Amino acid sequence: MPETHAVAALAAALGARFEGDGDIRVGGLVHPAAATPDALVMASSPDFLKRIVPGTARAALVAEGADWRAAGLEAAILAPRPRYAMAHVTRAFDAPDALAPGIHPSAAVEPGAEIGEGTRIGPFVHVAAGARIGADSRLYAHVSVGEGATLGAGALVHAGARIASRVTVGARAVIHQNAVIGADGFSFVTPDAGAVEAARAGGGSESAAQNLALARIHSLAAVTLGDDVEIGAGTTIDRGTLRDTRIGSGTKIDNLVQIGHNVSIGGLCMLCAQVGVAGSAEIGDRVVLGGKVGVADHVRIGSDVLVAAASAVASNVKGRSIVMGVPAVPRDEAVRSVMALRRLPRLMQTVDALKKRLSSMDSDG
Amino acid sequence: MPETHAVAALAAALGARFEGDGDIRVGGLVHPAAATPDALVMASSPDFLKRIVPGTARAALVAEGADWRAAGLEAAILAPRPRYAMAHVTRAFDAPDALAPGIHPSAAVEPGAEIGEGTRIGPFVHVAAGARIGADSRLYAHVSVGEGATLGAGALVHAGARIASRVTVGARAVIHQNAVIGADGFSFVTPDAGAVEAARAGGGSESAAQNLALARIHSLAAVTLGDDVEIGAGTTIDRGTLRDTRIGSGTKIDNLVQIGHNVSIGGLCMLCAQVGVAGSAEIGDRVVLGGKVGVADHVRIGSDVLVAAASAVASNVKGRSIVMGVPAVPRDEAVRSVMALRRLPRLMQTVDALKKRLSSMDSDG
Amino acid sequence: MPETHAVAALAAALGARFEGDGDIRVGGLVHPAAATPDALVMASSPDFLKRIVPGTARAALVAEGADWRAAGLEAAILAPRPRYAMAHVTRAFDAPDALAPGIHPSAAVEPGAEIGEGTRIGPFVHVAAGARIGADSRLYAHVSVGEGATLGAGALVHAGARIASRVTVGARAVIHQNAVIGADGFSFVTPDAGAVEAARAGGGSESAAQNLALARIHSLAAVTLGDDVEIGAGTTIDRGTLRDTRIGSGTKIDNLVQIGHNVSIGGLCMLCAQVGVAGSAEIGDRVVLGGKVGVADHVRIGSDVLVAAASAVASNVKGRSIVMGVPAVPRDEAVRSVMALRRLPRLMQTVDALKKRLSSMDSDG
Repeated sequence: MPETHAVAALAAALGARFEGDGDIRVGGLVHPAAATPDALVMASSPDFLKRIVPGTARAALVAEGADWRAAGLEAAILAPRPRYAMAHVTRAFDAPDALAPGIHPSAAVEPGAEIGEGTRIGPFVHVAAGARIGADSRLYAHVSVGEGATLGAGALVHAGARIASRVTVGARAVIHQNAVIGADGFSFVTPDAGAVEAARAGGGSESAAQNLALARIHSLAAVTLGDDVEIGAGTTIDRGTLRDTRIGSGTKIDNLVQIGHNVSIGGLCMLCAQVGVAGSAEIGDRVVLGGKVGVADHVRIGSDVLVAAASAVASNVKGRSIVMGVPAVPRDEAVRSVMALRRLPRLMQTVDALKKRLSSMDSDG
Repeated sequence: MPETHAVAALAAALGARFEGDGDIRVGGLVHPAAATPDALVMASSPDFLKRIVPGTARAALVAEGADWRAAGLEAAILAPRPRYAMAHVTRAFDAPDALAPGIHPSAAVEPGAEIGEGTRIGPFVHVAAGARIGADSRLYAHVSVGEGATLGAGALVHAGARIASRVTVGARAVIHQNAVIGADGFSFVTPDAGAVEAARAGGGSESAAQNLALARIHSLAAVTLGDDVEIGAGTTIDRGTLRDTRIGSGTKIDNLVQIGHNVSIGGLCMLCAQVGVAGSAEIGDRVVLGGKVGVADHVRIGSDVLVAAASAVASNVKGRSIVMGVPAVPRDEAVRSVMALRRLPRLMQTVDALKKRLSSMDSDG
Repeated sequence: MPETHAVAALAAALGARFEGDGDIRVGGLVHPAAATPDALVMASSPDFLKRIVPGTARAALVAEGADWRAAGLEAAILAPRPRYAMAHVTRAFDAPDALAPGIHPSAAVEPGAEIGEGTRIGPFVHVAAGARIGADSRLYAHVSVGEGATLGAGALVHAGARIASRVTVGARAVIHQNAVIGADGFSFVTPDAGAVEAARAGGGSESAAQNLALARIHSLAAVTLGDDVEIGAGTTIDRGTLRDTRIGSGTKIDNLVQIGHNVSIGGLCMLCAQVGVAGSAEIGDRVVLGGKVGVADHVRIGSDVLVAAASAVASNVKGRSIVMGVPAVPRDEAVRSVMALRRLPRLMQTVDALKKRLSSMDSDG
């Protein structure tokens, strides 16, 4: 159970003002519909404030200037940007799942592995020889850490995550359930130029070569993640061929994302669920890829680019662009295409009508 | 090995008629090409019936009115809707994988966890403190059940599935291998309005803001699944921020599907493989999402909606609609657009010709 | 640590020529930027050769005819197709992760399971009764092998992979972390014709039926993989209903791919990451599906077909075709559509102008 906080103390921690009775203690953050006297109500808009049934709550988190007294409350924290305040309040009320100190008796930590001070290792965790795990980390049930892998301090690794051999993870990583860091890259080559090479070299709709054999290019390198990286559940990140696949510090990756071999991603990026980045793509800093976005191999995306959900990036994108579509183009162009396509059936009727009129003019003439 | 059934008894269980020798016993359901005398042949159409080599089979499941004697059979179950009958027959011939009664000696069930009567716990399963698992459930190898999670009676949880802390699962759930119920939501906020907010607020193809920091909004709530829910292999369902992510009773979810935080999905829905539903989307009852469909955050989809495979739903959809495309629009409109796009190159030639004719008329005049 | 090789021996193993001092020993393959005297530098193009700082390296893998001496090297392996040579060289320098011989004391191998000679079983691996694992295989931590499953010799199964009951895997398989072979198919049927059947039968944008109940069709069959198959991390392959789902020999499947029930895929195919193949689809030999490609249920794709990334295949594709788009059409047609769509806004202006001119001609006349 998370502890309770006084409204005044919470406000101070947020760097926000409070009004009313700052001594009221709250033990959680709730929606107006679930209001209780011992929880802070999240009422970021006047509309949410109105939904609080008077008498059900004592304190709320509201926007600067909100009339919280009208909602029958006794105190309020006034935030200039309530959504940002929510980050701090939810952290205050969150607590990691229980995990006993030390190494669970069922875990298998191999000789030669180094476990940092204060680190907790859950049931059935396997840590291979030569792995090093920083201080104050938590590895929950069924996690595996491969030979020679390194995790920084303060890592939170959820059940079933796989950190493969020689992978490097920075400090304060959050790695969710069943994520896989460091699978082999998907890299095969044909003895002679194969079907894909032939298709890229020439045009047409018929394949000019056959893949009669596939030889595997082994992945000799690993994966390096910076500090404060978050990796979603079921996400897979492949190791590089000769140099590590790299994810920069502060980058957050959602669930079921695929990162191919040799990819390089900068810092503070956000990759939403089911994104796929093909081998050797290079992505700058602070890039946002919406859900289900695909990035083709070897493509370069500059810093501060936004790619709308469900887009497919097939060629380089310069920094600060907003792109969308399949294939992705600048947003204005994509919007124009969608609008034009919607009016296309009517355009066809117009052209038909013009044709007829012209024909009748011809025959008139 | 599944047991054998007499044709007459199987027919009675299906509420269907049989003809011929009802005492013939069959021990499985097979394709015409794999017919054997001791299995029921699935011959739902006259075409399938013809493929039975006479003498290879004794009994078949056929459509009402089929001429089964001509196929050399001795008995037939006649179903008005053979595909529906198949549900019952395959269930009769299915048997869950072996699992010894009780708790496997290698499992780790923590003090304070409650295990229902008749429930079987496989090797290396971890059940955390405060978890409650209903009667007659089966948890196969390597499953983890978090602190305070609840599973209803009759659950079938396959190898490596992760049920995170405080998640609630109804009765008779089927959760497939390596599914993750209750990972943290993907929710980050910038101190000032960030790049995504700026892009949503304004138009244009250039980003007007930078994400210079990302603060994490913690997920304080969990996930609630109704009764008779099925969750596919590798599927991930994120926990809610302040209220649980919810999946209604009878809803079936295929493999590698992503359900974001705060999402609410009604009952009896079908979500095909690789669907992604972004945070806070609301989906009604009996909705079908085809494979790879994406649903944007906060979108509302009414009941009885069908979304064709590979579509992206970017705005609200009213009940009973059939929509498709990227972005998804009503089916008729989508079909018109695809057809029009196909004729577009010719339209361009037509317009060119018109232009020339008009120019020549001008010069004629 | 991988062993070192003499340049002459490496060249001989590749069937390639070398020049210079063949006795130089190298212990790895590196990029020009990471050149060291004890590693072979990968310098497949003149551009890469130029990037070698003289004195940092002694030997390189170069293309036939390259001027390797100008880069200050003492030896070179000259390959007619350096990328193909890379397959052999990376294999020579790769070494599987350490795994102690025999069965790890924490593993659970049930009575009646057969383990081949030389096979190594890692920590927390579960092998169910009746499973048979060929010789010289490696099962890493947390793998589960179901009742009656069969693996050929020389299998490499990475941490957390799930091989379900009765699945058959050929020789030399590579199965990556958290892959799931043999989950149940996603197959449900309504008592009367349901919403999807009604939508397929008729047109329009309104649903003509409701799915008031969903009955499960159980998967009685399993999955069969040929020899030399590779399955990516987090990939899921469903078991068949009456006959096995099949993947032919030599086919390579990337991460997070979904293969539905009853699907049949030929040999030497390549399925890139996040591909989804719906139930009962049939795919020939040597087919390449780019990343995120979707294939609809029951569709047939001939041999030697290439499908571009992010395409959706909704109808049959004949052999040797190159197709792309949503829905996928022959490449030439898709390219024409994309080009035409891009010029569509201008076409609309042209038609407007024509209309006005015609109107003015009318009023002139």
